[in-house]
Amino acid sequence: MDPRPVGVFDSGVGGLTVLHECLVTLPHEDFVYLGDHARLPYGPRPLDEVRDFSREIGAFLERQDVKLIVVACNTATSAALPQLQAELTVPVLGVITPEAHAAVQTTRNRRVGLLATQGTVDSGRYASLVRALDAGVSFHPVSCPRLVPLIESDDPYGPETEEAVREYIAPLKEAGVDTVILGCTHYPLIRPILQRVFGRDVTLVFSAEETAREVAETLERKGMENDAGRDGVYRFLTTGDPAAFREMGRRFLQLPIGDVEHVTLAELSAV
Amino acid sequence: MDPRPVGVFDSGVGGLTVLHECLVTLPHEDFVYLGDHARLPYGPRPLDEVRDFSREIGAFLERQDVKLIVVACNTATSAALPQLQAELTVPVLGVITPEAHAAVQTTRNRRVGLLATQGTVDSGRYASLVRALDAGVSFHPVSCPRLVPLIESDDPYGPETEEAVREYIAPLKEAGVDTVILGCTHYPLIRPILQRVFGRDVTLVFSAEETAREVAETLERKGMENDAGRDGVYRFLTTGDPAAFREMGRRFLQLPIGDVEHVTLAELSAV
Repeated sequence: MDPRPVGVFDSGVGGLTVLHECLVTLPHEDFVYLGDHARLPYGPRPLDEVRDFSREIGAFLERQDVKLIVVACNTATSAALPQLQAELTVPVLGVITPEAHAAVQTTRNRRVGLLATQGTVDSGRYASLVRALDAGVSFHPVSCPRLVPLIESDDPYGPETEEAVREYIAPLKEAGVDTVILGCTHYPLIRPILQRVFGRDVTLVFSAEETAREVAETLERKGMENDAGRDGVYRFLTTGDPAAFREMGRRFLQLPIGDVEHVTLAELSAV
Repeated sequence: MDPRPVGVFDSGVGGLTVLHECLVTLPHEDFVYLGDHARLPYGPRPLDEVRDFSREIGAFLERQDVKLIVVACNTATSAALPQLQAELTVPVLGVITPEAHAAVQTTRNRRVGLLATQGTVDSGRYASLVRALDAGVSFHPVSCPRLVPLIESDDPYGPETEEAVREYIAPLKEAGVDTVILGCTHYPLIRPILQRVFGRDVTLVFSAEETAREVAETLERKGMENDAGRDGVYRFLTTGDPAAFREMGRRFLQLPIGDVEHVTLAELSAV
């Protein structure tokens, strides 16, 4: 038994999709969520810059006495996961290994696609993990620079988003993949569009669900769960505008977020 | 739904521990088990020789119309898994990834030990997978050349086995590991000795259980399970002496094996 909260971070609201799945799976656990809104988006930034941001946030969350940290951002996982694991005392999970594993388990024709940000595709982390799990899988990554800005825009469900999705998945249809990893925590927010455009014959693997499953298994195997009967308590922190975060969280996740604490970049990097 | 059997192979009887866990988890599936008794043990052989044997057996099992192949031998997995996955049409699972994953999930102090054959330790596959999953884990491999011969001897539970176990685990006690991967499919056969010598504070991760779990998840995700209501049918094949295989299977696994079919090495390598 371990009553400490689980820490979760992302550049913005995308990681809330991971948090949402964690809340469904682990209703008795406490969570501390930090969104680095002051510096989003991470996707187009150089990986070493994202790595520095992630190390600051990881150390900050460790100071909040969390028992486990979830990097709920594919770009930050690509950039920083091994370093966070090596530097921090608490275990750190990312959002890439769980989906790579699920995709290899799922595919029948052993052709797997990936939709992700430029940084995630460039890091090659999905490709190397998929190959380590099944050397016979043919892997087809596509970077989708327009999707995150569209999803965070005022019209996330408009024709422009559907057109962008159609354009990005054309090479995956061409390659005949039967399983696609949605390798960005924003993408569940347009799940109906993705499912409609891909059709029934393609299985979509979402970061959020697979990561929540990994968090649950890890806490169980380590014997670090909180008491089963209780209701979890959630803390929300942002380096940006608390009101905007509250609004985004409510809009995309149907989660009425109460107080949002503001953390300055100076507080984040203080040691 | 897919009525084809699952293929399982090992150099000898060790893989029966994996088969046993698969039968418990998947009682409705059919299995074809091949033991390469004519050429055991694999542990001390050069890895490229083990790779050639594994490729012959993989192709042979594919000709038996299996839907999935399980390499139920850590040495063969170390030597041949990526090549089998690249060459065969059916998916191929090995016994190393599942335990590496379970060990990383399980450890609390992030110190993990490995007991395995020389070939498995030398291949470095466990070390690289554990590090890929958690770059902050300190990993302590120990090769145990005496254990397989002792387990296959006439006196597997004698003082010599306990003495060998005490000697092999001394460096793991020294390193303070809290989780140990038993990276050879023979080791569950001396589970009580191992648990007694390690004590309650160390969690033992067995190939057999983790691999059965991976097989079940894979069949489910791929939608390739057999009908749930039925009883599985099992075929046993050996390149060695069918009577000796029957006896070993009964002795170690409490599984009354009926007919055992003999396969010559020429039949195995025929194309």
